[in-house]
This record gives sequence, structure tokens and C-alpha cells, in this order.
Amino acid sequence: VPELTVADLGERALIERISRRAGVKSDWVAVGIGDDAAVIEPARSQLDVVTTDILVEDVHFRRRWSPPASIGHKALAVNLSDLAAMGASPRACLLSLALPERLPVADFDALVDGFLALARATACPLVGGNISRSPGPLIADVTAIGAAGRRRILLRSSARAGDELFVTGRVGGARAGLALLERGLDRARATAAELACLERYERPSPRLRVGRSVARQAAATAAIDLSDGLAEGVRQLAQASGLGAVVELGSVPIDQGVAAVAGEASTAGPAFALAGGEDYELLFAAAPRRRRALLACASRAGIELTRIGRLTRETDLLVSEDGVVAPLSKPAFGHFAADPSQGKTVSRS
Amino acid sequence: VPELTVADLGERALIERISRRAGVKSDWVAVGIGDDAAVIEPARSQLDVVTTDILVEDVHFRRRWSPPASIGHKALAVNLSDLAAMGASPRACLLSLALPERLPVADFDALVDGFLALARATACPLVGGNISRSPGPLIADVTAIGAAGRRRILLRSSARAGDELFVTGRVGGARAGLALLERGLDRARATAAELACLERYERPSPRLRVGRSVARQAAATAAIDLSDGLAEGVRQLAQASGLGAVVELGSVPIDQGVAAVAGEASTAGPAFALAGGEDYELLFAAAPRRRRALLACASRAGIELTRIGRLTRETDLLVSEDGVVAPLSKPAFGHFAADPSQGKTVSRS
Repeated sequence: VPELTVADLGERALIERISRRAGVKSDWVAVGIGDDAAVIEPARSQLDVVTTDILVEDVHFRRRWSPPASIGHKALAVNLSDLAAMGASPRACLLSLALPERLPVADFDALVDGFLALARATACPLVGGNISRSPGPLIADVTAIGAAGRRRILLRSSARAGDELFVTGRVGGARAGLALLERGLDRARATAAELACLERYERPSPRLRVGRSVARQAAATAAIDLSDGLAEGVRQLAQASGLGAVVELGSVPIDQGVAAVAGEASTAGPAFALAGGEDYELLFAAAPRRRRALLACASRAGIELTRIGRLTRETDLLVSEDGVVAPLSKPAFGHFAADPSQGKTVSRS
Repeated sequence: VPELTVADLGERALIERISRRAGVKSDWVAVGIGDDAAVIEPARSQLDVVTTDILVEDVHFRRRWSPPASIGHKALAVNLSDLAAMGASPRACLLSLALPERLPVADFDALVDGFLALARATACPLVGGNISRSPGPLIADVTAIGAAGRRRILLRSSARAGDELFVTGRVGGARAGLALLERGLDRARATAAELACLERYERPSPRLRVGRSVARQAAATAAIDLSDGLAEGVRQLAQASGLGAVVELGSVPIDQGVAAVAGEASTAGPAFALAGGEDYELLFAAAPRRRRALLACASRAGIELTRIGRLTRETDLLVSEDGVVAPLSKPAFGHFAADPSQGKTVSRS
């Protein structure tokens, strides 16, 4: 029996499959899937926070590397991470899919299930979207809509000289997971450390709780999510605020799996941690007098939070290691530039 | 000198080009392009209306057929048409682009300019988005956010038996424009009628003003936009409302260009008008006692409005011509099904 593909079912039947899986609406959703547009009640006296981010096959993921459920999970997670970095709570999401005709329906279902499981876990109902054919790559483009209190929104641009830099969780793990996939890892034989790195790469956890708590407590002056790596996050936050930064390399909390993947003698560990990207941790800038409040937010959210450096009036971007100061290496990665240090072909959303 | 491509510039420089073009922010935009997410003030005591629709190269357009500015215009227009069908006013939009590496920067600029010209004309500021590489087709995915008054939202599902059906403007022109492109029309030698059909296909005008006015006056019971053709719009509105419909074929306002393109003896005219799609006109259902109010809304908006049939308690979908009644032909088109009647390869968003 030949495998059932999305072309066998057609657009209407596929939308019906999504609606069935999406389940009940939330209180604030007046009109969900099925009309020309969705209708949402804005959160009382809050502002709307909106973001969109796309996953393109063979740019951000490979179907032969990652299970469809992970692709669905990640498509939503990278958007929720942007809401988290603004201190916003999720309110609703939209999903645009462009599908190769020969995509098996089983893969479609798994992708949607992975997406919807995270949507449910984060109280972010799927309220609409569209399905199209793609003559090339599978594409999942997501819009996430959130809400945040007026004067409680975390920008990139509002940090001040003297603020300390803090990072949630640990970094480098996602890049190590990607390295494993590039090496053709056999999942059945993977170690626990290797599987943990894969999990970081394929199923990032948006740091919604700590982001919201920090915003509500006004415990930070600025924030950004680490989609493009720690060094790039520091650069963007510092530059948006008109400042420079010094990162203390020895303080950077490197994911435990990185050593197992990169090898102990390798320089890949710090490189993964600084330039790796896709960890979707948050970077906060905070005045030293708010340090205790900030750490309390992280503690209540059950998230590690580590001080990794500070922002300076001088606009240089520096990294300090054992008293030696060097330029914070400018990551060459971009969607249209080769990455000479890592030769990646699949990365970053 | 080789032509400058988007790969030569990179993601950051391309975003910078968009920001420069996007110009000043609107009052209700608290945070625009450049942070992790955009922040918008919801319209006072209104509901958020959100929609997303994608244009995929070689599915919805061909680059060798249509100028980049039209592709940018249409990517936004098809979304604004969904807002119009809900009776919503635009508030902001997001643009996700996946770009082939060899796309000329001049084409990128033109696409963005076409998008932004419509955004300005409709007071729908671009507040964010993302740019990615595509290993295949050019993709423009847009999210539009609007606002509409509580209890003033036009659904598909709230029509009643006995309601009359009205269509704005004229239909079939966009399908005729597509037929011209399929035939390899030379624009330099095109007639005025042919150019008008191309314009309908490439640069649809979202019917925002009449949609909003009808919603505010509660002059209709239901509405839908005609992205998928008149017959499909009637079917979707009737079925969502649990009703049937009779369309009077002789009343359907066919675009003047259709006859010029389809030939007078041809049956293509009515086929284009019923099944053609992409006209992005609006279909309203209205109680007979509200007919005068509905026509007044259209008149104030400077839009033709034509009564084309009615909704029935019996759920059959019928077309009536010279007293002969037949099933409203079920359009076979879908993104994953061939269209036996027209053999289209490029259509519908």
C-alpha cells in the first residue's frame, strides 16, 4: 500500500485535521480556526506583542535528521522565545505551512501534534493559519501574539552602562546537538549527554516564566533571546543600547553535554557556547542594585541564572579570560554568509 | 558588473533596507522593527483580528510573469482582504521573507516597495518580520492585525435563510489576467482591457472601506472574501451558516475585461466569474430589510454592489440561469488537486 501523502488529502481535509487536534478554544478567543481571520480579546489594559519567525527545510532543519514532531515544536518555540524576551505572555498563534506534495500525512500529523503540544503547554491556542503547496522545501512560518503590561516591556535598547549581564540556563548545547546531527549520529546508540544536546537543538524551551516575572518585577533594564548565540545577543543588546560589553568567558555557563560532544581538549566548547546559537536562553541586563530581585525571579521560575559580564560606556565588545581581554569575536554567521568557523549549512531561525 | 544579489548583502543589511523604507511609526505602534517582537496598542474597547496568508513562488506567482512590486503588493493585499471580510480596520502587519540567494537586490527593493506602498495607503504599518534564505522558491508570508468593534464582526457563519447575497465590484477579471499570463502576453502590446485584467490579478484592492462600513452599520449578517472564487465563497458562507444558496447567473457582475480575453462565444466568461478566484471582492449576506443600508455603505465607499442570489433553508447549492436550475459547480481546485477544468498551475493564495 503506498503511503498516504498530503496531496492525496488536499487543503481542506488537512485544515480539518488541524482543527480536530487543536481542541477547545480559550476564553479570550472569540473566533478561532475557520473564518477569514481569527478574533482575540486583547488582555485588559495590556499591549499586544507580536512576532513572526520561519523554519525553512534545509536552512533551519533537515527532515532526514529531525522527527516531524520536533520541527512542529521548534517552529512555535522560537516564536515564544521572542515573546519571553519581551516579558510577554502568549495569547494566540497562527501557523502557515507550505508543504511538499509528497509529504506523508503521518509526518504532517506528527508535525502538527508537536506544535499543538507546546501550544497547549504554554496556553497559546492556535487560532488560524493557512496551508499551501510548496514546490520545494517544507516551510513552517509562525506568528505568536502575546500581551505585556504597559511600562513593563523588556526592550533591547534600554540597558545602561554599569548594568550586569545575566544569562538563563546553559549555552552551547544546541550547537553541540547540531554537530552530532552533522556527524550522522545514530540515535539508537546515543549517550544520555548526546541525547540531551539533541533535545536542546530540536526542542528548545522558551523561557516564558522567567521573562514574564522579570518584566513584572522590573528586575532588568533590557533583554534579548539567544537565537543567534551569546556573543551575537550581547552585541545586539549592547549596540541597541549604545553601549559596549565585557563578557567573562570563565563565567559563561556551558551546557554539560558540550564537553562530551566537543571533546575536552577542544576549543569547540567555548566556541559553541559563545557563537553556537539556537539555545533560546534569555540574556538580561540589570542594574547591580536589582541583582537580588532578578535572581529571585529566576529562582521562582526554577531556572539557573548566571552573571556573565557587564555593559560599559565604551562601545567596544570584549571577552575577558584569565585577565586577558580580546575582542568578542564577531560571528560571521548570517543566512546569506558562509560561516567560516563552522561551515554550517543548517542553523538559526 | 555582475548584478548585486541578496546573498551579497546578508540578512542584517536587508532588514536595514526595509527599516529605512518603512518610514515613521504610527501612533499605536509602541515598538516597531528591530526588537525581539513588535508592540502595538490595541484599539480602545475593540477586538484584535488576525490573519496570515502566504505567497509561494510557482504556486501563487511566477517571477518571470509578474513584476516584484506586484508580488509585494499582493502579499499584503490578500491579507488585508481577510480583514475587510471581517469588517476590521488594519492596525499593523508582519512580513516573513524566504529568499533565493540569487535574487537581485533590485527585485528585493521593488518587492518591499510594492508591499510598503499598500501598507502606507491602508494605514497598516510594517512592524516586524524576518528574512531567511530559501533553497527553493521565493516566499512572502504576511500576518495582518486589525481591530473591529465587539458585536460588529462579520462572520461567515451567521447568515440566515432568506438573506440575499451581494458581491462587491466585478468578478472574473483576475482569472482572465492569469489566462493572459499563461498565454505569454506581451505587456508592451497589451490592450487596455488586457492590462485591466492583469491589474486585477496582480494588484487586487482589498475592500477595507466597504467591509468596515457594513460591519459598523450591521448592514449584513455574514461576509467572506472571494479569494477562491465566487462559487467557492458562496459554498463556504452557506455551509458555515448551515444553509443552501441559489445564485442567479445572469446577475453576476462579470468584469468587463473577461469578454475581451475569453472571447464572446466562449463559456469561459461565466466560468472565470464563478470559479476564477483571486478577485478579492467581498460577498455579503444581508436580510432583505437591510438592503437599503447595505447599498448605502457600498455607495459611500464608491464600490459597486450587486445582488446575485439568496440563501435557502434547503442546503443545496444551486445556480439558476434563464429559469433553469443546476448544481453550483463544485470547483475542483485545491492546492493539492489538479484543476481539470482549467489546468492551472499558478493560482490562489
